[in-house]
Amino acid sequence: MHCRGDYTLDVSRAVRVRYNARFAISGQQRIATMSHYYRLVVSCPDRRGIVARVSGFIAGHGGSITEASQHSDLEAGRFFMRYEILADSVGMSAAELREAFAPVAREFDMDWALRDTRRRPRVVVMVSRESHCLVDLLYRWTAGELDGDIVGVVSNHDDMRGLVEWHGLPYRHVPVPVGDKRTAFDEVERHVEELQADCVVLARYMQILPPRLCQRYAGRVINIHHSFLPSFAGARPYHQAHSRGVKLIGATCHYVTEELDAGPIIEQDIHRVSHCHTPQDLVRFGRDVEKAVLARGLRWHLEDRVLIHGNKTVVFA
Amino acid sequence: MHCRGDYTLDVSRAVRVRYNARFAISGQQRIATMSHYYRLVVSCPDRRGIVARVSGFIAGHGGSITEASQHSDLEAGRFFMRYEILADSVGMSAAELREAFAPVAREFDMDWALRDTRRRPRVVVMVSRESHCLVDLLYRWTAGELDGDIVGVVSNHDDMRGLVEWHGLPYRHVPVPVGDKRTAFDEVERHVEELQADCVVLARYMQILPPRLCQRYAGRVINIHHSFLPSFAGARPYHQAHSRGVKLIGATCHYVTEELDAGPIIEQDIHRVSHCHTPQDLVRFGRDVEKAVLARGLRWHLEDRVLIHGNKTVVFA
Repeated sequence: MHCRGDYTLDVSRAVRVRYNARFAISGQQRIATMSHYYRLVVSCPDRRGIVARVSGFIAGHGGSITEASQHSDLEAGRFFMRYEILADSVGMSAAELREAFAPVAREFDMDWALRDTRRRPRVVVMVSRESHCLVDLLYRWTAGELDGDIVGVVSNHDDMRGLVEWHGLPYRHVPVPVGDKRTAFDEVERHVEELQADCVVLARYMQILPPRLCQRYAGRVINIHHSFLPSFAGARPYHQAHSRGVKLIGATCHYVTEELDAGPIIEQDIHRVSHCHTPQDLVRFGRDVEKAVLARGLRWHLEDRVLIHGNKTVVFA
Repeated sequence: MHCRGDYTLDVSRAVRVRYNARFAISGQQRIATMSHYYRLVVSCPDRRGIVARVSGFIAGHGGSITEASQHSDLEAGRFFMRYEILADSVGMSAAELREAFAPVAREFDMDWALRDTRRRPRVVVMVSRESHCLVDLLYRWTAGELDGDIVGVVSNHDDMRGLVEWHGLPYRHVPVPVGDKRTAFDEVERHVEELQADCVVLARYMQILPPRLCQRYAGRVINIHHSFLPSFAGARPYHQAHSRGVKLIGATCHYVTEELDAGPIIEQDIHRVSHCHTPQDLVRFGRDVEKAVLARGLRWHLEDRVLIHGNKTVVFA
């Protein structure tokens, strides 16, 4: 049995005040400040009676379930569920509810987490020189589309300092020299730690994370990369795709593991192209589909909709 | 300058009578027997005045253009066009119009074809043991969805003889033994020739065509294959895709060249999948997307909507 901790820190007040002053707070955000939810996410060996036991437990505490998803992987013999419970309907704090639920979790040998949506996960974005994903995520954050807060940006280049600092966020420039990647990634790790990241997003970060970082933040580092049918190795893939006359270009959002680009897939999508489109058009469509796929993947991750099992995901989107 | 010939033979009357007796003739077919079109397809070095010259030529002969498409590939400096002209509006046969157009074609160094839609292209389908694409194409042919006629099926197995012969079509079983592929493909070539194929469709034909056949029928052999993001080499790709937890599965329809699966792409599409789907579901979705993509590719080819240029296509769909 393993219970993942709750997110322990809210976003820094200073940052929120700053961006609230710059941008109108959306209705969604205002609602979020009025009511909140407990999210119960469970994965355990499949057997009879799990749903009855868990829903009985919640009902027994007066809990009102506002969203429920479940899935049985018959091949793996594993059960997955996600409940969203109106916090006010339960007469106790998240910590108290967690304590009360622990015996049920033990009974079914659950991997589980119970999270209070008031405690917003902290996201560190890593970026290199292409800004499209970063700009998109910053916008979505300020627009209240993400169920978490961007708390800082780490980059191996200094290009995006102005943009990031304008958003009131710390910018940590950590060059990664070919000869001394180890020292650089020790520094990256310190920054991620200092920023108390619950989640790291590689928003077109063009360096390979070392195994230690991958392990330490397993299931919490999200990457985006282009994907093509057929696939193109090497440089300038959009130009290769253009000269091959492909009719689709795609993007894949996945968790980072030590095996490069082979971690559990969260989301994929494509954009249609035709003979009318230039390599520049393909690059532009590629950015669009990368932005969209990364944003969906991150959004679902922050809403605890993505459950990892082995090298696969269950996505209750 | 090169003028591709028109399709020279109509489908055998016996076969058409047979399937018309079995299936109701669609409205589309009935209309097709009443009016017909000349299709002018042109590819030439791009320069000023092509459209003016060609449209002027057609107008000069009283021709009514019912559909016009054009594309300039600025990179390659090449111009592509496709006109559909109401045959009755031109006071001459296709052969006469071809002769009249030849000087214009020479003037602009055109690769071109002028086809009369009354002469329906003859399609030979090649298949192995998976029937989904064959069944789909046979249905579409009988329903009048294809602007051509299936005139026979060649297979390295005998499994689909009953289905094919029920449709009143010849079935040519040519086993391809590992030790003597050459003799087998000589026989395949004889059948394709005998059936006077304008176009060959590899509808899940699991043998690799020899270079000679690829060259002889260059730009007239259409293949379908699954495609994944990421790609999976080896056996049972749908099972591999499932164990990787992909969110999309795809298919690619392309012209066959000597370079396996790397010929000009005509069409591609995908089907979304989720954690709910079993490997069997993926196989089923794969069949659906393969059928749909192959049918679109073939339909466009038969309607002279696909212009090949190098390893790419211009598709006026």
